[in-house]
Parts: sequence; C-alpha cells; structure tokens
Amino acid sequence: MKKTVENLGAQILKGDRLAVARVMTLIENDDDHAFELLNILFPHTGTAYRLGITGPPGAGKSTLTSHLTKILRNDKCRVGIIAVDPTSPFTGGAILGDRIRMNDLTLDQGVFIRSVASRGSSGGLARQANEMADILDAAGYDIIIFETVGVGQVELDVAAAADTTMVLMVPESGDIIQGLKAGLMEIADVFVLNKSDRPGAERMKMDIEYVLHLRDADPWSPKVMETIAHQAAGITEVWKEVQRHQTYLLSTDNLKRKREQRLKIRIERIIRDKIEKQFWTVRRREILQAYLKEEKKELSPYRLSEEMLSKILSDI
Amino acid sequence: MKKTVENLGAQILKGDRLAVARVMTLIENDDDHAFELLNILFPHTGTAYRLGITGPPGAGKSTLTSHLTKILRNDKCRVGIIAVDPTSPFTGGAILGDRIRMNDLTLDQGVFIRSVASRGSSGGLARQANEMADILDAAGYDIIIFETVGVGQVELDVAAAADTTMVLMVPESGDIIQGLKAGLMEIADVFVLNKSDRPGAERMKMDIEYVLHLRDADPWSPKVMETIAHQAAGITEVWKEVQRHQTYLLSTDNLKRKREQRLKIRIERIIRDKIEKQFWTVRRREILQAYLKEEKKELSPYRLSEEMLSKILSDI
Repeated sequence: MKKTVENLGAQILKGDRLAVARVMTLIENDDDHAFELLNILFPHTGTAYRLGITGPPGAGKSTLTSHLTKILRNDKCRVGIIAVDPTSPFTGGAILGDRIRMNDLTLDQGVFIRSVASRGSSGGLARQANEMADILDAAGYDIIIFETVGVGQVELDVAAAADTTMVLMVPESGDIIQGLKAGLMEIADVFVLNKSDRPGAERMKMDIEYVLHLRDADPWSPKVMETIAHQAAGITEVWKEVQRHQTYLLSTDNLKRKREQRLKIRIERIIRDKIEKQFWTVRRREILQAYLKEEKKELSPYRLSEEMLSKILSDI
Repeated sequence: MKKTVENLGAQILKGDRLAVARVMTLIENDDDHAFELLNILFPHTGTAYRLGITGPPGAGKSTLTSHLTKILRNDKCRVGIIAVDPTSPFTGGAILGDRIRMNDLTLDQGVFIRSVASRGSSGGLARQANEMADILDAAGYDIIIFETVGVGQVELDVAAAADTTMVLMVPESGDIIQGLKAGLMEIADVFVLNKSDRPGAERMKMDIEYVLHLRDADPWSPKVMETIAHQAAGITEVWKEVQRHQTYLLSTDNLKRKREQRLKIRIERIIRDKIEKQFWTVRRREILQAYLKEEKKELSPYRLSEEMLSKILSDI
C-alpha cells in the first residue's frame, strides 16, 4: 500500500481527477492512508486561494457559486468546490438539489465539485473539508470555494477555513438579528445582498451597513454588494470585491496570521481525532456498554469516566 | 471547597434557585467543582421529563415555550428552560431579544430560565446543556425544556438530549426541503406548524404530513399540530400531543433506550473533554506555537501531531 500511496500522491500532483476523487473518499472515511497522503502533499499546498460562501438556506449560494465559477473559468482559473450539505440520516444522504443546478459545471474539466455530508461526528467535518481543500490545492486548483449553509457551529468552522468569507442574505431573510444570532455578521469579509430587486432590499442594505459599521475594531470594512444571482447580475462586482479583500490581506500580515490560526485549529483536531480513535478500544466499548445496561448504576457517569481514564491521564 | 460543594449540593436538592444559578455558571466555566457536584447529584436525577423545542429562526419557539410554560404552571409543574443562543463574539454575548419576551415568566418562582451561549468549543455545549438539565432535575423541576435554533449539528445534539423533540415551522419557511436539509424532519416527535392562519399553511401541512409519512420504519408517527402561538391558539393540543408521545415512550422500552443512548454520548464527551484538558499543557502549547511561527516548516502538521502524540498513544 505504501507504493499505492506514493502513486496516488504523484497522480494528485499531476492533477488527476480520479485520484483526487479517490483520496477525498479516503478522507471522508478517515482512512489512515489519507493521513499519509496529506503528509506527503503538505509541502505542495498553500498556493490556492480559499473562499468561503455561506448564508441562510435559500439565499442563493449555489447559484452565486455557479456564476462566480464561470467568471473564474473565463480567467482560466481552475476551481475546486467543496459543498457542505447538512444531511438527513432519514433520507440517507446529502440532498443534492443544489448540486444538480451545478450540472453544467461538472462537465468542465477545470472544475471539481465535491459534496460533503455534515452528518455524524460534528468535530471531524471542518477538518475533513480542510483536508479536501489541501488535496485540491496540491492538485493545482487555483481557487477553492467552500459552500456551507452557515447556521451551525460546524458550518461556521468550515467558513473559517477560508481566506475570504462571503456572506449572502436575501431581503426575505427579514431580520438581520437572525444573521447576528447565527454569527454571520462578524465573519463576513464580503457581504452580498442577493435578490436585491425584491421589496425591502434598500432598507435591508442600510440595516446591514449599519450593523457592519459597528465592527469598528476591524480595519477591513466590508461593502454590501447587490446581486440578482439567477440573472447573473452583479457577480463581476462581487468577484472584484473578493479580490479587493485578497489585496488587503496580502498588504497586511493578516493572511499569514489567518492561515496560522487555521493550522493551529487543524492540529488540535488531528490530535483529538487520533487520541479518540486510540482510546475507544473494543474492551473500553464493552465496559461502557455494560455500564449502560446496569439497572441500578453504582457509579455516576462522572466516576465511570474517571475510572476509565485513571491510568491514562497520568501518562498524558 | 469540599464543604462548599457539599453545601451547594444540599441547597440544590432543596431547590435553592441561587445555588442552581451558581452551579450553572460553574458548568459553563467547566469548573472542576461542577464535576464533583454532578457526581454527587447524579443519583437524584432521572425524574424530570425533557422536552426539546427546535426549528428555524423566527418560527416562534420562544412564544410557544412561554405559552407551554403557562399551561404547565397551571398544572403546578415546575419548569426549567435552557435556551441555547448562537452567539456573536462580535456583540460579546447571547442576543437576549427572545429571552426578554419571557420576562413575565422570570418573576415566577416555579420557573427557571437559563440562556447558554453557543459560542466557542462546539463539542462542549450539548454536554453542558445536559449537565444543566441534571441540576434542574435534581433541584426538583418537573419539566425541562431545551429551546434551540436547530439548524446546526450542535443544536441537533442538544435537541437529542430530550425525551420528546418538538419541531416548529411556519408557512413562510417555505420549502420543506430546507427542513430536511437541516435534519429537522427526522428528529421530530411532535411537529408544530405555527402561524397556521397564514397563506400556504394548508399546502405546507399536507407536504409535511407526506414527508413525515415516509418515516415508516418508526412505529411512532408524529401528527402535525397547528398553532397561532402569539394568540396562544392550539397550545393545549400541543401539550396533549407531547403527553401522547410520553405515554408511547413509556409503553415501549423506548424511553429507557433513548436515555441509555444519551448517557453513552455524554460519557464519550466527558472523556474527550478530560483528555484534552490534560493533553494541552503549557509545554505542548508552546511547541505548537513555535511550530506555527516557523517560516519554512520542516514537518507537516500531520507529522507534528504524530510526534506530539507518540509517547502518549502507546500508553492509552
């Protein structure tokens, strides 16, 4: 398998799409080979620019992503898209409605789209999305777009993996308070008011500008860009605003600091995941299972945890 | 401090509100004394019924919670409310708008309301909400309501801490696909269509019933209850439906299994949190910090993690 890993690594550096897809599946399955590959490919990462696109459901994120991608393709940029879909264990997979709209892009060899289901262990998702971005980065994609629903912590974590974070809203989202609550207002580097031809858009734009204005601690002040994504109106301006933010980050030390912070979080996650994988042996699972079945529990769950950890903690 | 812990424990068993509030702060700060208290109080938990109320922003969760609480108070039930607010690091705390509406309840000695901010470490929140519920349980509250926004994984985790999970939607939420995407449809034990006097309600009710009907694997089939929460219409029926679900759970072995599963997740979280607290010593933080500052990194983050873990993993 060592050979296979090296082969896969070489294929990825050549930009082989099948190899990219294969490694993404390894990442999704937390396969040990993925770890080796990421280790090998690490020196070849850091070139791609990472753009997060987030906002409430129905804001038009997929449509905007499609149009942005077309602009980027005209500039000969290769684009990787990682779309985080909250998943329903009930339907058994990510709901691919949004992805279907991107169908015309999937025929383009310069575009790679991957859906990641946000089901299951919440902790691992942001790490996996980051690792997938590393693969695309090593495979020579110039821009990597993370598209997430952006309401839960996991989605915010994924958005935080980006160099520039774009937040979309529509006038119907109504209350900006909801955006504040979801933590969207303070992570926005570029703010897009989509469907800006709808009633209430002017009022909402003023409100957003007012709220963004409160972030005075930050020297970067995001503009509110107006788009009508399904008519492809305003998309070029949005892309120019992303570039303006990129220039700002590069002119200060911010990009470096942002990426440092990101790496820190990643290392913490890698360590957590490794420890947990090691801790939960078959034996420990059995102890836990037996405890759960006890009719009258002698130990509290706290004492049980302490006992299971007692030998380990002194060694850590 | 041992004495203080025992004192606090005794006060909580007597239902002392100040003691409850104090311990909740200890829990929020991950204070070691909280751990001791939870351990002492564990045998006194398991009596309260836990109800989760979730749904998209603006669905009317707080209004419904208020009215339900009034009904419960008329039945002489003591009610604890744990409201999970996604937080803005930008505004520096939970946005308390929704809480303010509950003001008339806060004067009632039989009601205890606590807001938990969902900022920071996503992993700990569901555990903390559970622990706060245990305190309320030990303090003699009969019903504990978790109110969450319910779009991210964390909110779903908190909702999963409940015996009965209620999902609210309004006709304007429009597309049920969004509810599916957020994972709400399959966790609903009781479904509430709020603002059912609005246009489109009938159609939406049919759609929801259709989607819920697809969950045929589950013997429990949730009804779609209609309410107009701000007029307090339909609330009694909603409460009866919660009781119908409670009866169903008790008649089968489901409540027991649900609570077992919950305890399992809690123990896993306790263990994770303990290990991490122990692992991240000042020394290890320094190593990580030095690595992040390296201009040209010799190790990949994967190799670094391995080195930091090398001695530990063999001992775990």
